[in-house]
Amino acid sequence: MRMAQLSEASSIPVATIKLYLREGLLSPGTRTSPNQAQYGLAHLRRLKLIQALVRLGRLSLAAAGDVLDAIDSDRPLLETFGVAQRAATRVADRAAIRDAELERVDSLLEDWHVDPNGCGRYDAAAALTALKDSGLNVTDDWYRRYADAALAVAEADLDLVDAQEGRSAKAETVVVGTVLGDALFAGLRRAAQQHVSYTRYAGGGTGFLPAR
Amino acid sequence: MRMAQLSEASSIPVATIKLYLREGLLSPGTRTSPNQAQYGLAHLRRLKLIQALVRLGRLSLAAAGDVLDAIDSDRPLLETFGVAQRAATRVADRAAIRDAELERVDSLLEDWHVDPNGCGRYDAAAALTALKDSGLNVTDDWYRRYADAALAVAEADLDLVDAQEGRSAKAETVVVGTVLGDALFAGLRRAAQQHVSYTRYAGGGTGFLPAR
Repeated sequence: MRMAQLSEASSIPVATIKLYLREGLLSPGTRTSPNQAQYGLAHLRRLKLIQALVRLGRLSLAAAGDVLDAIDSDRPLLETFGVAQRAATRVADRAAIRDAELERVDSLLEDWHVDPNGCGRYDAAAALTALKDSGLNVTDDWYRRYADAALAVAEADLDLVDAQEGRSAKAETVVVGTVLGDALFAGLRRAAQQHVSYTRYAGGGTGFLPAR
Repeated sequence: MRMAQLSEASSIPVATIKLYLREGLLSPGTRTSPNQAQYGLAHLRRLKLIQALVRLGRLSLAAAGDVLDAIDSDRPLLETFGVAQRAATRVADRAAIRDAELERVDSLLEDWHVDPNGCGRYDAAAALTALKDSGLNVTDDWYRRYADAALAVAEADLDLVDAQEGRSAKAETVVVGTVLGDALFAGLRRAAQQHVSYTRYAGGGTGFLPAR
């Protein structure tokens, strides 16, 4: 199909598609004349993946490029996982992490095989530092239940990866699942908070949370 | 303490504190002369809460203001929860949500009491729409396990709120827990993914994920 049809099929403006081409996120079409090129289903699929990473995952174009390079490479899946994790990571300010909170994370996860330089350990410690700084009275029981839930989600993530056929589909699942899984979980957590609050505080009443 | 001491105690620059005062996020100190005011421990505590919301929770100053207003009000806790959820929500583009994915969320959560206009339901549907658009082959089993984990986390969140004494501490826990809980869970999920990948793909080897 031509550029105009690719735009229509993907609901993505031509200018945006041209930006992705210039930035190297999308491979060029097959040139049929000096001013025209043909694009295929692989382009359409890749466009949707880029949109998912950039719009909902809120990755920068550069970070999305790193992630797509990792999918296209033949690096081991474990490495692809690492690239997706780094690209999708919200926190990077290690200076704001206190040693005491890093130790607390280490003791929470002492039975896990975790990369000591990986983003998970530092992200969790950054969140614990901020929780502590905010003066909140948090309990070890709360952390522990978060860690148990995170482990259950990670098992589901890896089962989903294992169920895909071929390296490319597995790598895409690693990347998209890492980036969009955060958003899915955050939405479900809010819905679950509504459900649990309703059950505890408004049982029998009509007390749903106020409409947005 | 004076402004300079408040800045030192909080590690927050004077210019930033003055910005929070101007924006109404921090209440004024007690004026002791035309050019000087005294600040107390309540100011210090509030400053740390603002930093947690703005820096790690990535809220705008306006969103942080809404959240702090909700803490300071005497609105019911359920409403405070709603304000914190809306302020901490990443997605708002309802036009990008497909009806089919909203129905899928509704059927997934059919036993839950969820506000039909709340952000949780729409956020989850937005993530499902993006997952579908990206061409990923996701399974009902994966969603179900995410929902189960989200419920376990929400139970832990509400237990933490219930354990606080007094409305103000409960409201702060609702707010901070909602905003920072996402970041904590994302970090733990990455660490858990490393652990599970290592266990499945590199058992017995030295194959940690590559250092950042």
